[in-house]
Parts: sequence; structure tokens; C-alpha cells
Amino acid sequence: MLGSTHGTLSTDPRTARAVACGERPGTVVHGTADLDVSGRPLRASVPDLDRFFRPESVAVIGATDAEGKPGTGITRQLAAWAERVGARLLPVNPGRETVFGLRCHHDVGSLPHPVDLAVVLVGDPLPVIEELAEAKARFAVVFASGFAETGAAGAAAQRRLAEAVSRSGLRLLGPNTNLNAFETFRDDLQGSAIALITQSGHQGRPVFALQELGIRLSHWAPTGNEADLETADFIGYFAERPGTGAIAAYVEGLKDGRSFTLAADRAARNKVPLVVVKVGRTETGARTAASHTGKLTGSDAVTDAVFRQFGVVRVDALDQLQDTAALLARARPPLAEGVAVYSISGGTGAHFADLATAAGLPLPVLGADKQAELHQWIPGYLNVSNPIDNGGHPVGDWRGRKIIDAILADPAIGVLVCPITGPFPPMSDKLAQDLVDAAERTEKLVCVVWGSPVGTEDAYRTTLLGSSRVATFRTFGNCVGAVKAYLDHHRFTAAYRSPFEDAPRTPSPSARKARALLAPGRRLSEHAAKQLLRAYGIRVPREQLVSSAAGAVRAAGLVGYPVVMKASGDRLAHKSELGLVQVGLTSASQVRDAYRQLTDIARYEGIALDGVLVCQMVDRGVEMVVGMAHDELFGPTVTVGLGGVLVEVLRDTSVRVPPFGEDEARAMLRELRGAPLLDGVRGAPPADTDALVDVVLRTQRMALELGDLLGELDINPLMVLPRGQGAVALDALAVCR
Amino acid sequence: MLGSTHGTLSTDPRTARAVACGERPGTVVHGTADLDVSGRPLRASVPDLDRFFRPESVAVIGATDAEGKPGTGITRQLAAWAERVGARLLPVNPGRETVFGLRCHHDVGSLPHPVDLAVVLVGDPLPVIEELAEAKARFAVVFASGFAETGAAGAAAQRRLAEAVSRSGLRLLGPNTNLNAFETFRDDLQGSAIALITQSGHQGRPVFALQELGIRLSHWAPTGNEADLETADFIGYFAERPGTGAIAAYVEGLKDGRSFTLAADRAARNKVPLVVVKVGRTETGARTAASHTGKLTGSDAVTDAVFRQFGVVRVDALDQLQDTAALLARARPPLAEGVAVYSISGGTGAHFADLATAAGLPLPVLGADKQAELHQWIPGYLNVSNPIDNGGHPVGDWRGRKIIDAILADPAIGVLVCPITGPFPPMSDKLAQDLVDAAERTEKLVCVVWGSPVGTEDAYRTTLLGSSRVATFRTFGNCVGAVKAYLDHHRFTAAYRSPFEDAPRTPSPSARKARALLAPGRRLSEHAAKQLLRAYGIRVPREQLVSSAAGAVRAAGLVGYPVVMKASGDRLAHKSELGLVQVGLTSASQVRDAYRQLTDIARYEGIALDGVLVCQMVDRGVEMVVGMAHDELFGPTVTVGLGGVLVEVLRDTSVRVPPFGEDEARAMLRELRGAPLLDGVRGAPPADTDALVDVVLRTQRMALELGDLLGELDINPLMVLPRGQGAVALDALAVCR
Repeated sequence: MLGSTHGTLSTDPRTARAVACGERPGTVVHGTADLDVSGRPLRASVPDLDRFFRPESVAVIGATDAEGKPGTGITRQLAAWAERVGARLLPVNPGRETVFGLRCHHDVGSLPHPVDLAVVLVGDPLPVIEELAEAKARFAVVFASGFAETGAAGAAAQRRLAEAVSRSGLRLLGPNTNLNAFETFRDDLQGSAIALITQSGHQGRPVFALQELGIRLSHWAPTGNEADLETADFIGYFAERPGTGAIAAYVEGLKDGRSFTLAADRAARNKVPLVVVKVGRTETGARTAASHTGKLTGSDAVTDAVFRQFGVVRVDALDQLQDTAALLARARPPLAEGVAVYSISGGTGAHFADLATAAGLPLPVLGADKQAELHQWIPGYLNVSNPIDNGGHPVGDWRGRKIIDAILADPAIGVLVCPITGPFPPMSDKLAQDLVDAAERTEKLVCVVWGSPVGTEDAYRTTLLGSSRVATFRTFGNCVGAVKAYLDHHRFTAAYRSPFEDAPRTPSPSARKARALLAPGRRLSEHAAKQLLRAYGIRVPREQLVSSAAGAVRAAGLVGYPVVMKASGDRLAHKSELGLVQVGLTSASQVRDAYRQLTDIARYEGIALDGVLVCQMVDRGVEMVVGMAHDELFGPTVTVGLGGVLVEVLRDTSVRVPPFGEDEARAMLRELRGAPLLDGVRGAPPADTDALVDVVLRTQRMALELGDLLGELDINPLMVLPRGQGAVALDALAVCR
Repeated sequence: MLGSTHGTLSTDPRTARAVACGERPGTVVHGTADLDVSGRPLRASVPDLDRFFRPESVAVIGATDAEGKPGTGITRQLAAWAERVGARLLPVNPGRETVFGLRCHHDVGSLPHPVDLAVVLVGDPLPVIEELAEAKARFAVVFASGFAETGAAGAAAQRRLAEAVSRSGLRLLGPNTNLNAFETFRDDLQGSAIALITQSGHQGRPVFALQELGIRLSHWAPTGNEADLETADFIGYFAERPGTGAIAAYVEGLKDGRSFTLAADRAARNKVPLVVVKVGRTETGARTAASHTGKLTGSDAVTDAVFRQFGVVRVDALDQLQDTAALLARARPPLAEGVAVYSISGGTGAHFADLATAAGLPLPVLGADKQAELHQWIPGYLNVSNPIDNGGHPVGDWRGRKIIDAILADPAIGVLVCPITGPFPPMSDKLAQDLVDAAERTEKLVCVVWGSPVGTEDAYRTTLLGSSRVATFRTFGNCVGAVKAYLDHHRFTAAYRSPFEDAPRTPSPSARKARALLAPGRRLSEHAAKQLLRAYGIRVPREQLVSSAAGAVRAAGLVGYPVVMKASGDRLAHKSELGLVQVGLTSASQVRDAYRQLTDIARYEGIALDGVLVCQMVDRGVEMVVGMAHDELFGPTVTVGLGGVLVEVLRDTSVRVPPFGEDEARAMLRELRGAPLLDGVRGAPPADTDALVDVVLRTQRMALELGDLLGELDINPLMVLPRGQGAVALDALAVCR
């Protein structure tokens, strides 16, 4: 019965296509329960949290109104919140008859019927959670701390909580969370709202306070330790709600990489902006964050790549989270990408234009007609090409509004930014009002930067913040960043195609061949690693593994001179440094000598060989590296970078998390600082980037199909030949898990 | 008489060592009038601006009190300002008998005696300036616009103004400036003050408004078009004033590179922080800025390098200028470099620590004793290693102050940062007060980040802003940036040694030899360019210029096989692409063939050769480039970078403006992303960086001595051999101006 209710879908058109599958009560799975070839889901399980945020009944376990008890304040706040959302409050406490005048229930079992939401205030929540699961409660919130954030014993206790709910229809928020979900949201504000998710109450507070600046908030999910419900669940849920303008999240760690990517994918499909502060740029940050809520942080480079793949807007600090989420929540899609900068000071315009163009914002030069139009109202010696300098005086009279309207009427302009660095009331009050009025009558985005450090001025507090149509910033940097994110978001979602649509579901024929080469813990010799590549259709040089000098000479004849010879063995790394590679051998006698030298060195170094490789020599091309590895959070990853000595020095690499498509593989190449090398420099021919992209995609297939067994693969170098001639893996390293 | 008064020095010990030289009235030259070998000054001419900012008499040319005239408001403001600074106001206007009750003078000639300061309100200032010069006025301010910012005619008018004052003792501020120099500064504020210099009044407004947040300002110099007095003059003057805590500047362009470096050098010697917004990161910004006040912008990379050379703190936006200048003005030198992060939330601490360590701030782990001490007051399960998480409750009682004092008592800690992201008055009010109280009793720096976007809270407005000892920020980013600048500034100035001390004053013997090779407009052949290098002691390969195949074979025998052969001519570039280089020639017959091929190609391409170079082959080493060029603002520059194909792709170069010392040359190498290549990678031996530094310094000498004639020099590649073996310039390009 409960299951079927949970399975009922909202009638919102956004979710109408969703299909209930009932695999876990309280969860709506969109589409059939699909797995990719790595065994991970291809569809997000989006929990139906309507009853969590708008319950009909709220039980408070441990409710009290006794004076001086810490629970009393919490109970009072919950009672007030329940009344506001129209829920019936059900206090539960064996020691009290009534709480705030309401009859108190003795225990969970004595509650009249299954509750929508139970808030657990007791110190040891496990028995209560078990009773709630038994009593078919839908949602529980556990405030108690002392779980995964405190170490191994706490982590074990948290696992027991998770197990208690996993067997039931009950969904749990927490432990180690707080009252933030039960805050009062202002209902007098205009515009689309921000839905907030935080892993720290204190860190969410500034975003919540945006309401005092006139920005609407609809929800706050403080996810705590995420024993059950996690950040991704709330992203998925908010992304499906029609009122969500943007999702803002403060994230210290994630519970599961795939859940996150599926949730971000859902937001991208629904064109809901997702703006995230993710702690963990540095070791110190990652370590401290992990100790705060006991979650995985993964590699920051991988997190960054995932964010790019799914159009997640990453910002560093809370002020950027506030400003960017507020803009993205409220601004309509851009009618054009051009940004016009309009100011009462040439200096201010030049400065803003400098920072804006440095960040990649397009500031189109206004057409001659438009400039002539503006010069009707602006003195002719002032520059109005964009930035537009009005010299000050025109804002004081009827011309002020004319200028703004004329700029907004330009079809190349989608965004008007007016930086007001110093308030000068005779000018700035009227300017602010004109901007607010103009913004009411346009679909285009109007931004103001109020640069006064004081911020108590009327034009700012009343005029600008009073408008839901003007986006008001306090700093150039945050305005530039937010406008960039706004244009990028709409460009990204317009072109977005979910990588999960095309993800492989069944193993390729290559997988069977490849698995025969892998065994847990095994490190493959170069020769075996190249067989692995060959199984996946990645070209390797003509080569033969030989075990005698005579065999080497025969092999060289077959492979064709000049040849390269290398010692091959499963314990070998840094072959070049050890002198275990010889290149450019052009005769049988050189090959014989080389065979002797290589085996002598190996013997001297005590290295067991499975033979000597005699390989075709390939020396014209661009040296790249392609590889796969594992991230503790996101699983298998694929990397491409500049090869040779430079990969070690410059670490010029780009990473992605599978599944991803060809476009994304090409985007990886564009991210490389050394990318122009592929276009050909100093007369070198352009390299075969199609072949390079093909190798990246085949490596991805390997990562998805063999990721359970294959821990690490490095093709280094991959020689990318001139266009039309392919790419050849000259050396490879493969290590099983 | 006037001259001698101008030459009188302040008795401030900072300037006591200065020597008046009287070469130009109104100017104090520190040290003897010294020139370096390039003919540019080695000592700043610091004008004595005391009488500008605190005049005894102020004439207002064009003064009026007529209703409705724009000059009336200005005259009123000047009268009020004159009264405040104790100056006598002298209105000048042929059309009025009195102005605001004061007797009006008919013209400049009828003024009773030479005035300290004349403010020129008339539209055509040139005749007035000439009269003022004649009347031996000391300073004039010209508000009128329509000069260099409007184009060629305006620039010519500006030059006439400049000439009018250059022949006299009069110093001029403007034209195209405003009343900002005559603002009211609050005199009730504590702490060292910011002196402000701006090239746009509107852009200075937010810094001026800092006074409303309790930050002291002492001066505001709005330099306008800088026909005479320039930004550098004010930097030099403020750097010599004892009350200056920091100089904050908004700069769109500079008038002269050397004046700026000399002024920045003076600030660095005197340990006065100089914080600058410099527009011109982008082409758009530079172009727009140039059109605003008609000044030179130079190359942004060169400006950036100059700032690093002289410890100028560059920030991008005005909010950073405010926050950084305010901190640097008021904080005492650090007692230790360690930063402690203290917060009531583990999330906040982790987040701040992440951003701080990413920016390079050192967060030392607190010792076990200190952690035990903190755990007396902070629950044992909370992390106090740094960041220090107190969990919230301890701030509410007597423990709060104990914790702060204990952190500040740690000798490894010089800075305590407390981020308060969300105000919660029961906790944050007490916390703010404790921090303010603790800051009063320590020499260490206490910073607070008040993260609420509202900013009207009492704890912020009253408690924190009321303290001159706590540095209060609104964003994590600005706090991190300012603390970084603070630690960097003190480290920089402690180690600073002026490069002008050791700058060469007379040409080296090399210069004469080298000059014989140069002629205006000439482009040197490779052979001639290498002679230039040789003249400066830079090693080139053994090589001979030959004009026959037989000569080539003879030369190869002398140079030693294998050899490289290259066509040589003064019109040659991109030799490799044209096939005009052959490497690895090992026999006489190869040399003969190569000679024929090279001359054939040159004939076919119609390229005149001065011969063919037969050179020693050098192929083991790290390929670098070293060069010189000219910046429109800073003159000759010296560059070093990674050579080969990569310099074109990655543009991994570092630039400096001479003169600079060996330390700076080594710092250039550390800036290169490819620097580890010099240490030796993949078993390669470490390169001879001493030899590389030596080539950089010899190139600098060339830049200083030949900069008038030599426009461009490129040593590419410079092969840096293994340590102890030197560096060899394998190819060079030189172009005269």
C-alpha cells in the first residue's frame, strides 16, 4: 500500500514521462532499471521527497517542553514549522503526557497510523529507526552526531543505521544533521527560487540569508553524513520540481560518483542550473572535509572533469555560490550572447570590460547606427562602442532611460551590465531606478554592480534589491563569473546530450579476448599489454617477441629495418633509464649486438624477462599518452595528454569519467595546453586527431568493460601520425587490480 | 628663492638622507643625479607635495558664486576645503568683485604674492597656466577635459600645457581631473592610513568610502591625464611620508616606465606596500583605458613582471584593492608566517583551509601540546590540528576567549583567521567581541570573514568595524588574497635590494665592438648576430662562414665532424622550414652535397646569402630561448623561455625589465612551467643553469647598452649543456631599430 502511494507520480509535465518501478519504496526510477556494461545504473533513482518537505504528519521522537532541556527549543521550532506546512504534530516521549498541549505518545508503536516524517531527537537513534521502519514511517531525520565523522566505530554505527533503513520503505536524512530543513522560507518574494543542499549548516547560512536581499529560496536540505539520502537524491528531486530556478550546493564529499553523475545529468537534461562549492582543491581541504562528515572526496581533477562533463557550475566560495545561483535561478534564457557594459565613467567601463573579456565574455562592438543613436544623448567625444561611457550627466534626466532602452534594443546584446562603483545619489539613484524600470520591460538580462563597500545606501537596499528583474552584485569579479556561468549554462544545456543514452550495456567481443590476459594483481609485460590493446583494435607496431639473437635477426627481417629492440617482462618499468631500449637499429649485426646487450643488462640488474621485443620503428608523429585509472569516487577514468618528457614536467593532461561521447573526447584534446602540437607547428603536418579520438574512445570501452579487473593502463607514448595515417601505441603498461 | 624653498627637505628621518639637487624646482632628487648606461635616471625625482596637499594659499581661477553656474559648487567646495586645511582662499575672476564674501582678484597678475596652489576652472587653461608660471605659483590643478583623451588635437594641446610648466617651477595636476584631491578625510579614525592615487574619480570612490567602514585615508591624488605630475610622483611622495600605511592605486596607463619603477623601488626600500589595480589584462581593456586618459598601456606581461620585480601587489578588482590595501596599511609586520584557521563549524574551517592552502598560505599543524591545551575547552572528538573546529558551544562562554588567546600564543602562528559565515547572534556576537578584545592585546594579525550577504548586523557594523586591530573581510577570497599579499610583502621587503644600486653606469668594452655591427634598420645575418653574442661573451658553436663547397669541407675539418650546415643571410627566417639547415653531416661528401643543396634552394627561393655556415653540432642539452625586445612603456626587456617547438606552442616564457640582478634572473627560471627540464628528467643530467643565468645577465647588459640601436634579439635555441659545461647559442636573430 505504502509502495503504491510512493509510486504515484506528480502530474507535473516534467516528470510525466517518468515510470515508477517500485524496486525500492519511496523511490521513483525514471525509465527502466538499466545497467551499463560496468554494472552501474544508467538511470537516476529519484526519491519522491514531496512528503518529506510537505508532510501531513510529523512525529517528534524525544519531544519535550520541559524547561531547560535542549530538546524543548527544537520541539518548539518543529511545532511551528508543522503548523506552517499544515502537518499534524505527534510528540513521542514515554516520560511526558503532553508536549506543548498536544497529547504525547508513549512510543513509536503507539502512534495512530504511519507518519510521513519522524524527527529523531534521541541520542541513540538506531532502535527508534528500527521501530519507525517497522511502523512504515516514510521519512526520518536523525540529528545525533558521533557517526562516520568520528572514526571507525562511528562508521560502523552509521552502517547499522543504513542497513536498518535499506531493508524498509523508510528513507533517512542524516545522521549528524540539523534543523535547516525546517526553516521558514519567505513567501513574499518574486522570481524562481534556489533550492539549497548543504553538508554543513553553518556554510548554508549565507545562501539562506539571500532571502533578506530579496532572493527566493524554496528548500534547504542539510544532508549530514548521508547514511541513506544523499546529495544526489536531492539534486535529482529538485531538478524535477517545476519551481526550481537553480540548485545551489555546498559539498565536502560525495557518497557515490555514479549517483552524482546521474543526478547532474538529470539537472542538465531539465536545464536546471546546478551551482556547487566542492571542498577539496587541496590535500588539506580534502582531509579536513573528510574528517567533518566522513565522506569520500576523490581526486579533485576528476571532480572538476565531471563537473565540466555535466555542466555543473563550480565556484570556489560562498559569495560566488550566492551570486551565481541567484542569477541563474532568476534570469531568463539569453536572447543573444553579447554583453554591453554601460557606465557613467570611462574608467569604470574600461576596467569592467577588461575583466569581462579576460574571462571570455563577448563584448561586441556596437554598430555605427547604434553608436549614432546613442550619441544623440551622449556627448560625441565619449566612447560608446562598448563599453559605453555616458560621461555622467545624461543619467540625471530623460536621456538616461533612452540610452538604456537603446542598448537593450540592440539584437546583438543579451546582457546589459552597469557597474556603479561609487554611489553619487543625484546620479546613481536615478540610474538605479531607470535600470529597474527598463528591466521590467525587457526579456534581456540587466545586471548592476554596486561597488560601494558600505551597502546601506537606499538605491542599493530599496531600489535594486527590491527588483526581482535586476541582478545586483557587489563585486566585478562575481558579476563577471555569474554572467559567464549564465551564458555557458544555456549554451551547454542547449547542446546537451546525455552520455547515458548511448552507454554500452553488453560487453564487446573484445572484452572476452582481453579478460583472458588479466588476472587479479597481475602486472602485464609490454608484450601482453599490447595484446590487450590489439584486442580493442588499438594499433601497435609490427613486433615480435623473441628469445634468441638469431630469432631477433629473423624478426627484424619480418618487421622491417630500422627496428627498435626492448627488453620485455612483467616487472619492467623505466626501461629507457636502465638502458633496456635500443632504437634505430639498421642491420643484422646491430640487432645481434643489441640482443646481447639487453639480456646482459637484465641479467646484471636481476630482472626476469619474457623475451626481447623487436619492433617496427615509428618516429614521425606527435607523442601523446592515453590511459585509464580508478578514482575512489567516480570509478574508472580515461586520460589523454602530451607524451614524452613533457607529460612528466608539465602534466598537461585531460581526464573524463565514462561514459562519454566523441564530442567529449574532442573536448579533452582542446583542453590541452599543448593542443596546437596536433595541428602541426613549424611545418609539421597536422596529426591524425581522428585516430587519437578513436584510441580514447576504445580506451573508454576498455575502462567500462574491464574496470573490475584492470586497475591501470598507460599507453605511453601513443604516436599520432600525420592525418589519415592513424596512431600507434609504441609502449603500454597495464596493471590488474 | 622659490627654488631654494622647494629644495628644502622635510626633517622626517625617512627623507633625511635625501639630497636636493635643484635640477628642477619643485622636485627633490634623492641622491646625485645618476644615469644608467641607457641614459635613464637611477634615482627617483620625488616632488615635494606638502604644499600641494597643505597649501597656505589657494587661488581659484574662474571662481564664482553666481547662482546656477557649475563653477559655484566647485568654488564652494574649495572654500570649505581651504578653511579646513587652514589655507587662504584667493578667488580670481575679472567679472566679479567678491566671491562668497571674499575680495575677487581680477587676474593672476594681480594676486598679492606667489600662491601655493591654483585651481584652474576655466575652459582654456593654457594662458592661465602661463600666467601662473610667470607669477611663480607652486602648484596648479586643471579640471578641463578635451586633451589627450580626445585624440591628436587634444594631445597637442596637452603637450603645450606640459611645455608651459616644464620651463617653470610650477607643477601641474591634470588636465582632465577633478575635485577628489580636495575631499574631506575623517580624522577620528585609528591606525595607519591608505594614500590613494586614481586615474578615474569614479573608480576611487569605493576606496574613499572605506572611511565609512572605519579605515583611515590620508590623501587622494586623482592624476587625470598626467601632463606633468604623474602616478609615480605621488607614489614616491607617499612612500616618503611617515604616516603612509599603504598606497592604493587605480591605474589605466603609465606615463613613463622608468619613473614608475623608480617610485616602486622607493616604496619597496621604505617597506611601504603598494597595491595596484592595473587595467589592461586584455586588448579591449587596454584600448578602452587608453582612450580614457590617453596614456600608454604597454604589454601586460611586462607590467606584471615589473610588479613582481618591485613587490607591487597587483589585484584585479576594486573590492580586492580595498581589502588588501586596508589590511596592509594597518597590520604590523608578521611575528610568524603560520596561519591558524579557527571556526565554529568544521565545514567552514575545512572550506577556508582548502582555499587558503590552494593560494599557498602555510597552515602549520599545531603541536600535540597546543592541541591538548585546546582540548581542555573544545570537545575531544573535534579536530583542532588547524583548522581548529570548536563545534560552536565554547564561544558562548568564558572558554571562547581562552581558545583565541591560546592559538595566538603559539609561536608558529602569526595570523589568526576566523571565518564566520552565518551570523547566529548568541554565538557570533560574543565571538566577534572576543576576537576584537584579543586583537587589542596581541601584536599578531587577527582577521575575520563576515560571510553574511546582508552586512547590517551589529556584530559586524559595530563590534568588528569598530576595531582598528581586527581586519574584517566579507569574502573568503579577499581574505585569503590579502593575507597572502601581507605575508609576501613583508618577506619581499625584508629581502629587497634595489636593482638600481648595481646598475651599470658606463658602457662595457663589449659595447663598442657590438655597435660596429649595428646600423639603424639593419637585420643581422645569423653569422653577424653570433658575432654580437660573442662580443658579449656569449658562447656560440665553433663555426665558419664559407662561400664554396671546398671551403665548406675545409671548415668542417676545422670545426670537427659531425657538422651542421646552414644558409646565412640577413633576409633569412624560418630556415628549417625552407630546408636551409642540414644536420648530422659526417663526411666530406655529405658536406659537399649539403653545400650544393643549400645554395640551390636559396637560388630557387631568390634569397641572397652572405655564405653558408659550417657549425659544430651540439645536440645534448636543454633547448631554451633568451631574447630582448622593447616595451613601449618600460623600454628594453629580457626574456627567457623553453626553446624548440614548445616556445611556440606553450609560450612558456618569463620576462624582466633591466636593471635586475642575478637573483631575479634565477627567479625568472623558477617561473617557467618547464623549469623541471633544467633539473634533468628521465635520467637526463641537470643542466648548467649557472651558464643560463649568465647568458640572461649578459643579454640584459646588451639590452641596457645597445637598447637605443638594437630592437630585437632572439637566441633560439640556446643549448644549455649539462652542469659545468656551459651554454651555447646555436642560432640568433638580431634586428636593429
